[in-house]
Amino acid sequence: MKKTLGEIAEIIDGVVVGDKNTIITNVAGITDSKNGDITFVSNPKYIQYIESTKASAIIISEDQKLIVKIPAIVSKNPYLSYTKLLNSIAIEKEKHPSGISKNSAVSASAVINKNISIGDFSVISENAEIGSNTIIYPNCYIGRNVKIGEHCLIYPNVTIREDIIVGNNVIIHSGTVIGSDGFGYVPENNTLKKIPQIGIVEIGDNVEIGANVTIDRATTGKTLIGKGTKIDNLVQIAHNVQIGENSIIVAQVGISGSTKIGNGVTIAGQAGLIGHVTIGDGAIVAAQAGVIGDVPPKETVSGYPARPHKQAMKLYALIQKLPELFEELKKLKSNK
Amino acid sequence: MKKTLGEIAEIIDGVVVGDKNTIITNVAGITDSKNGDITFVSNPKYIQYIESTKASAIIISEDQKLIVKIPAIVSKNPYLSYTKLLNSIAIEKEKHPSGISKNSAVSASAVINKNISIGDFSVISENAEIGSNTIIYPNCYIGRNVKIGEHCLIYPNVTIREDIIVGNNVIIHSGTVIGSDGFGYVPENNTLKKIPQIGIVEIGDNVEIGANVTIDRATTGKTLIGKGTKIDNLVQIAHNVQIGENSIIVAQVGISGSTKIGNGVTIAGQAGLIGHVTIGDGAIVAAQAGVIGDVPPKETVSGYPARPHKQAMKLYALIQKLPELFEELKKLKSNK
Amino acid sequence: MKKTLGEIAEIIDGVVVGDKNTIITNVAGITDSKNGDITFVSNPKYIQYIESTKASAIIISEDQKLIVKIPAIVSKNPYLSYTKLLNSIAIEKEKHPSGISKNSAVSASAVINKNISIGDFSVISENAEIGSNTIIYPNCYIGRNVKIGEHCLIYPNVTIREDIIVGNNVIIHSGTVIGSDGFGYVPENNTLKKIPQIGIVEIGDNVEIGANVTIDRATTGKTLIGKGTKIDNLVQIAHNVQIGENSIIVAQVGISGSTKIGNGVTIAGQAGLIGHVTIGDGAIVAAQAGVIGDVPPKETVSGYPARPHKQAMKLYALIQKLPELFEELKKLKSNK
Repeated sequence: MKKTLGEIAEIIDGVVVGDKNTIITNVAGITDSKNGDITFVSNPKYIQYIESTKASAIIISEDQKLIVKIPAIVSKNPYLSYTKLLNSIAIEKEKHPSGISKNSAVSASAVINKNISIGDFSVISENAEIGSNTIIYPNCYIGRNVKIGEHCLIYPNVTIREDIIVGNNVIIHSGTVIGSDGFGYVPENNTLKKIPQIGIVEIGDNVEIGANVTIDRATTGKTLIGKGTKIDNLVQIAHNVQIGENSIIVAQVGISGSTKIGNGVTIAGQAGLIGHVTIGDGAIVAAQAGVIGDVPPKETVSGYPARPHKQAMKLYALIQKLPELFEELKKLKSNK
Repeated sequence: MKKTLGEIAEIIDGVVVGDKNTIITNVAGITDSKNGDITFVSNPKYIQYIESTKASAIIISEDQKLIVKIPAIVSKNPYLSYTKLLNSIAIEKEKHPSGISKNSAVSASAVINKNISIGDFSVISENAEIGSNTIIYPNCYIGRNVKIGEHCLIYPNVTIREDIIVGNNVIIHSGTVIGSDGFGYVPENNTLKKIPQIGIVEIGDNVEIGANVTIDRATTGKTLIGKGTKIDNLVQIAHNVQIGENSIIVAQVGISGSTKIGNGVTIAGQAGLIGHVTIGDGAIVAAQAGVIGDVPPKETVSGYPARPHKQAMKLYALIQKLPELFEELKKLKSNK
Repeated sequence: MKKTLGEIAEIIDGVVVGDKNTIITNVAGITDSKNGDITFVSNPKYIQYIESTKASAIIISEDQKLIVKIPAIVSKNPYLSYTKLLNSIAIEKEKHPSGISKNSAVSASAVINKNISIGDFSVISENAEIGSNTIIYPNCYIGRNVKIGEHCLIYPNVTIREDIIVGNNVIIHSGTVIGSDGFGYVPENNTLKKIPQIGIVEIGDNVEIGANVTIDRATTGKTLIGKGTKIDNLVQIAHNVQIGENSIIVAQVGISGSTKIGNGVTIAGQAGLIGHVTIGDGAIVAAQAGVIGDVPPKETVSGYPARPHKQAMKLYALIQKLPELFEELKKLKSNK
């Protein structure tokens, strides 16, 4: 990148304060910046670094204008502006593979639409259908009868098992497995007999799935990831889970079988949910929480077993006070 | 599938109530069913849906006979019957790849028994031995000297490192890594020196291992997964762990080095076990528990640090009451 | 292996007690040993097995000399001696693939230095550079512009995305993904808009990374793993995390975005760290801890939310006493 501050202000819809001819060659975090970089402040924790940053320019909100001494772009939403700038750079840099590698193995019965990329050593099985403009990186496995929509991005070493349905504009990161068998057994003569998993997984449009995620196929019917939902790395989604739209599932979360998650839900890192419960729209499950019952819409829960967050925080505070409690009780007893 | 209710009753060993000529075309969960489906009730939580289900038929137990108004099959164990039905459908649908792909890389010194499938871009290294009727999907790596038994199913993108032993009828899901080095270092001059891991992993007959699981090879000797044990997705099994027979290890569990787990043990999701402890036969470790000591046979433990479950539940209940405890103590003090 | 006890004593720098001509053919744990094996005792928990071990010889410390009745090697540090012995065996056994497979796909623009191994079905993309003596196992993906140093060992099914930098003597285990996109979105009209992740990952010299680990690329700048740091299986490292030198990150740990971890830090299994916090040099985070703030150098923290370990242990002990506390309070009230 090589742009003037004025050119960047146009891209991100902001107003220049200071020299609009300042040359910007890179974007960086406020504490990592050096000469030639533009940075931004959004998280209040980082306001303290405005004075010492080595960046050549900074994206700020109106109310930080007075404390900034370097050229700046004032924006209504510095974080969104920063994102727009990153987008414009990403488009410049973006260079995915194109074409169908002669080293791939594409079944004669697969339906391959226009302008598709299939990387080296990727397998497209019988009757699979790949939508136009979709890019499949090397070393992926796409099972028979899989349907993948348009403009998808499948990174290397992804496995999508038979019969899975993937929408449009879906991104799936490396190492992720979609459609492995759900985990179900029935005891029989002191052994565990496998319950066949004959259902599928359906992934809605605009979903992004991180690296090394596992999403099991349903026993019958489908495991469902709703439109626009974003899933981080190493998440486990069991058979017949249903996740709504535009929800956020952070890294290492585990969701047990048949649990239903609403729209706009956030489940923070390492939280675990038992099976057959319902999480209402807009609910938030805190990091490492253990959810063993339904969570109403818009409720925030934390702890194990998960409770409304304010209540959980109060209990944690009281636990901290246990030493003095025991002390006082001792006094009371001896005073008698 | 297209069968009459009478035909299904024979498959699952049940008794028809209502029209035995009802045509069934699919199996579905009670709340997802539509016309043509057969469903079942086992979990009491779902009895409430019997009246409203849109299924054309239902598998029930004797005591639900009176409340069902659609054609039904009465079974001694509806869940087991449902499983039998799924099995018969799965056998109909099942279609694994066959033959050895010309795109695979099979060492000249590998021993390839009868009726084996090796998928595109899978590697079978020197002196590996694959038992008859075993299916290895595409993009797998089988290291040198590995022995895999008969009738195994290895899904795409699995890694089995050198010298590992896998029994008969074993299923390994995609992305799983067996035989990675155990995690061991010894401090030396302020750095960490790697301890070579020269042992193996041995997997017993009838084991199933989920997706993106990691099972480390032993430092010396072997990491052992006993016959019939079932392991869910994203589980970590460290070096020299020994797991008995017919145990269940749920998703995202972590088991540290040299820990011994008995037969018929259940370790629920996201639980963690420190190293060098012993979990007795038939014990249950609750979800997210942190086990830091031995657990006797048949004991159920939960919480962090893990305690007998009844005791842990009592403590949780008392923690819930802390606000009133503090309140009462305050009163007592002011009354004096 | 076939060596006399005297020969082994020379390798591991110890002193023979008993018959120096004892023939040793293998190394094993003290409870797994059989005739011909040499074993060792370091962890005090295993001293009880010295008498009953079936090993032919044992590595011990000076103070155990009197209780040992089989031939032994006395060592200042039995564990280090054992490690030396394992090393000598590992070097004997070690047999990595060599040469560049004709089944690999190496870009014409890639820089391939001397004495490199590239396995079947591995992809080396445009402008990637692989240092001399580095071994890349089968089914790996190395993205464009990646730089990998000398003497590295990349196991099967590893994904290293574009622009990543890997130092010398780095070991990366199977299934690991380096350089997947960081997890970042900005809300826009009730949907989640992706924040492009245009930064990189840099891995220092002598780092070892376990199986199925995920290390996300930075939003801008870099995610950094310092020299000599060791990462176990299934660990999640988010965008812009910075880890110092010679730190230990145990299995299933999750580290959120922009968190900074010092040198010589230990983070035990399944612990979780929120974003934007700092963990000081030499700090220890206990297993399953939930860290929601900075941790000073050399501090040990545990529990959720993580607290200094001694304080956390005291609170756990008091929680255990809650039943009697409630009992006593009841008495006090009724006595009034």
